Amino acid sequence: MEVSLQAALDALADPVRRRIVRDLAEVPDWSLPCGSFNHLQVAKSTLSHHFSVLRNVGLLEQRDEGTRRLNRLRRPEFDERFPGLLALVLRE
Amino acid sequence: MEVSLQAALDALADPVRRRIVRDLAEVPDWSLPCGSFNHLQVAKSTLSHHFSVLRNVGLLEQRDEGTRRLNRLRRPEFDERFPGLLALVLRE
Repeated sequence: MEVSLQAALDALADPVRRRIVRDLAEVPDWSLPCGSFNHLQVAKSTLSHHFSVLRNVGLLEQRDEGTRRLNRLRRPEFDERFPGLLALVLRE
Repeated sequence: MEVSLQAALDALADPVRRRIVRDLAEVPDWSLPCGSFNHLQVAKSTLSHHFSVLRNVGLLEQRDEGTRRLNRLRRPEFDERFPGLLALVLRE
């Protein structure tokens, strides 16, 4: 699946999604469960939507481990598709 | 004026504005008058709004010459503030 620049910009134009991306970038892959983002103070359904958008543009990979859903930022893959874009978000 | 990443992403998340940016990148500075963008088939007021948004994020500089308003893409300035972002738009 080739993600369009439009989709990538739309995904990152939301401040909560950029916050999720920055939080994931600060920890090892697969260490943050979805439940750990409750401090963002958005409704659970909204949070699910944000994760879905991030998955759809290839920024996020998720896997279930027991009752937890763990996350990985697909940084190298996204960097290859959109060089420099993630770096702008991470230094924000 | 320090432009926020939010403002830059919002500005570039619009396909017509990205088209304007690409058109400007293909010609020498100050060679394209605003009237030359009529082929984009958007209302004149909408086009004015797009130019305004691009000016406000530091992507566009304009100057009047007689009855024409000429444009320059502020590429080096924008590249310094947001490295890599314009390159993604131009290769789209």
